[in-house]
Amino acid sequence: MAVPPIAARRSAKGDGIVTLLTDFGTRDAFVGIMKGVILGVNPRARLVDLTHDIEPQDLRAGALVLRSAVRYFPRRTVHLAVVDPGVGSARRAIAIATPHAFLVGPDNGVLAPAALALGIKRAHTIDVERLTAVKILRQPVSATFHGRDVFAPVAAHLSAGLPVQSLGPATGGIEELALPACRTSAGKIAGEVIHVDRFGNLVTNIAEGDLRQLNGFSPAHLSVSIAAMRIRGLVPAYAAVAEGGVLAIIDSWGQLEIAVRGGSAAQRLAADRGSPVQVAVI
Amino acid sequence: MAVPPIAARRSAKGDGIVTLLTDFGTRDAFVGIMKGVILGVNPRARLVDLTHDIEPQDLRAGALVLRSAVRYFPRRTVHLAVVDPGVGSARRAIAIATPHAFLVGPDNGVLAPAALALGIKRAHTIDVERLTAVKILRQPVSATFHGRDVFAPVAAHLSAGLPVQSLGPATGGIEELALPACRTSAGKIAGEVIHVDRFGNLVTNIAEGDLRQLNGFSPAHLSVSIAAMRIRGLVPAYAAVAEGGVLAIIDSWGQLEIAVRGGSAAQRLAADRGSPVQVAVI
Amino acid sequence: MAVPPIAARRSAKGDGIVTLLTDFGTRDAFVGIMKGVILGVNPRARLVDLTHDIEPQDLRAGALVLRSAVRYFPRRTVHLAVVDPGVGSARRAIAIATPHAFLVGPDNGVLAPAALALGIKRAHTIDVERLTAVKILRQPVSATFHGRDVFAPVAAHLSAGLPVQSLGPATGGIEELALPACRTSAGKIAGEVIHVDRFGNLVTNIAEGDLRQLNGFSPAHLSVSIAAMRIRGLVPAYAAVAEGGVLAIIDSWGQLEIAVRGGSAAQRLAADRGSPVQVAVI
Repeated sequence: MAVPPIAARRSAKGDGIVTLLTDFGTRDAFVGIMKGVILGVNPRARLVDLTHDIEPQDLRAGALVLRSAVRYFPRRTVHLAVVDPGVGSARRAIAIATPHAFLVGPDNGVLAPAALALGIKRAHTIDVERLTAVKILRQPVSATFHGRDVFAPVAAHLSAGLPVQSLGPATGGIEELALPACRTSAGKIAGEVIHVDRFGNLVTNIAEGDLRQLNGFSPAHLSVSIAAMRIRGLVPAYAAVAEGGVLAIIDSWGQLEIAVRGGSAAQRLAADRGSPVQVAVI
Repeated sequence: MAVPPIAARRSAKGDGIVTLLTDFGTRDAFVGIMKGVILGVNPRARLVDLTHDIEPQDLRAGALVLRSAVRYFPRRTVHLAVVDPGVGSARRAIAIATPHAFLVGPDNGVLAPAALALGIKRAHTIDVERLTAVKILRQPVSATFHGRDVFAPVAAHLSAGLPVQSLGPATGGIEELALPACRTSAGKIAGEVIHVDRFGNLVTNIAEGDLRQLNGFSPAHLSVSIAAMRIRGLVPAYAAVAEGGVLAIIDSWGQLEIAVRGGSAAQRLAADRGSPVQVAVI
Repeated sequence: MAVPPIAARRSAKGDGIVTLLTDFGTRDAFVGIMKGVILGVNPRARLVDLTHDIEPQDLRAGALVLRSAVRYFPRRTVHLAVVDPGVGSARRAIAIATPHAFLVGPDNGVLAPAALALGIKRAHTIDVERLTAVKILRQPVSATFHGRDVFAPVAAHLSAGLPVQSLGPATGGIEELALPACRTSAGKIAGEVIHVDRFGNLVTNIAEGDLRQLNGFSPAHLSVSIAAMRIRGLVPAYAAVAEGGVLAIIDSWGQLEIAVRGGSAAQRLAADRGSPVQVAVI
């Protein structure tokens, strides 16, 4: 495995950014330790936290938050995601090259939605044994903290220009994540809440594109139903309704969202992840 | 709008620091996305979080925390504050130049206390339409996430040297924030708690300067009353009283603060933001 | 005190990293302010958060989290730890040089476990008065926020190459921290839980080395008892037991840990810091 020297590896604008998404929380030093390892490999890496507050082992939340973020980083950014209930099992560690970014993490689906959104150019298994032999990885690799011992050093090397192909053999595909899809029939869409953000906004699995395919679609002539509430029409901004008003909007994720201006829709509607949402043309 | 090339824009020490203060929390990737956008514009920006745990839409807490921090950063630091209940409404987006720092955010008062403390040199409206035309802003600008689409790119360009005047027309003044003022009469000061910090310390709106204007002022001869508690004299340090003792002190904000050594004054005195505080010379 | 110019101070790889560990939380700007001060002194410092969620004034938790992290950072990293119930008292401020890293903080034990783990090369008292005179510290130094006024500037200067000896006189030793030790007798080890991590994993004060010194030790022939639970044998990875299973493992800290796969051992066993743990060979 010929590893080009550091100088040659640095390249375009954006080279060097590593983002971190984990379910490690911020009470312990787990995340700081990963950053120490990254800076030991690539002292010029630019580190950006996406979040560390994913609920322990909540693959789907990690996957959705990751997908929401990757488009907004410069090209060649390396995104490291560690939500890893299977650490120490036979689950593979992988790295994925897309035209826009690199993704590193366990092959358990946490990378899949972001990878599919960006398009997979190549995906490679991280060959821990071989990378340990060539000192890309520290010895010994623990069975409990691959964030520190596998993913952080791999992300750091990618940020310094190491090609994904150097990490191990091409995978024959990656684990996907079963995300609930919305269903359209007879001019209606049935979906659900897939994420509740910090403000209590309810992000659904109904994309703007799904709405546009409804016969006779116009933002003013939609009915959005959730819990006992029926909302007429989409608004262009939270501020389009009065304080406390319930509204439906296309949010910054490009998804149909139900919100309360100046309040929490999750509380107001007693809704949560999984709550059903229906849309119809009126 | 002539934008000088990046090289020419970099200047003095401190150039390049961008701080972020929001009410976005850390569960979602909102903050990470803003950082991705900033680094896409100015790859050399140095990013520092002030806090993202402002209660949703609590303008006053955001404004006070921002004001507490700005003096401690190097000159030419860009402070980005997004507590923005009116996103998508007619409220303006503004950027303010002070002799010490730049401030960027919605014109809803969140920037005002920091701006007044530092002194306003010039304040300009961010002309979203024009900046989109010249590609300072990404197209399209959403109506729900100006942190990403307006404030982050503007802060990044300021950190790279873009003059505030390039952003749009001078404002005719900025929105102020109604902060409760303390009142002095007949040798007494009536104030209130304006902030409770992580330790349960009660920061009041009574500044050291207010105390010094009392007739016959001396730190030992003050009486500070809150709830049913009367505290005699100011101490120079928390450690001046025994563990568990209630004390009054001039804190690191330069404000009169009521604290419990090794404990929480908020809990002990059942006090919160808005609790009245009286000071008298004894 | 001759301070070499900045250029001469910068040296090896790793030079320039400053980590921060505090009990300041993330709701206020205390941490951001410390970073502003550091960047004002050394604009090239690389800042990494270890954690700011240490419970207020919990020296032991701060000390253990710090110790868990220091080995994973590049050489010459400066670790700044501020858990400081005695701020403003006579407790000393110190800086410690070890072969691997620098440690800065109050001399109250928070640095001691990390310092002992790395080996103390020299420890010096921070002479606040003298450093203020030579403008290493800002004037005036407050009695309430030494993180901002003492530790941050000292850490920044160390990160830029200032020798520890320049800070003040050698200490005659540092404050140690009373950590509960495990006791081995008659082929059994009695220890306790010293840390509960974010996942509810129970980290004990029994190190892998303690286990290896048991007569007849083998990972399969250990019995680990906690609460009413008796666990047979150590597993090499969380994934070695079924979902929901209780397990004992050597964790990434190198300590005996009790965990529940995919769950919280703290909840399941109603255990917390201080809960007794017994190990015997079976």
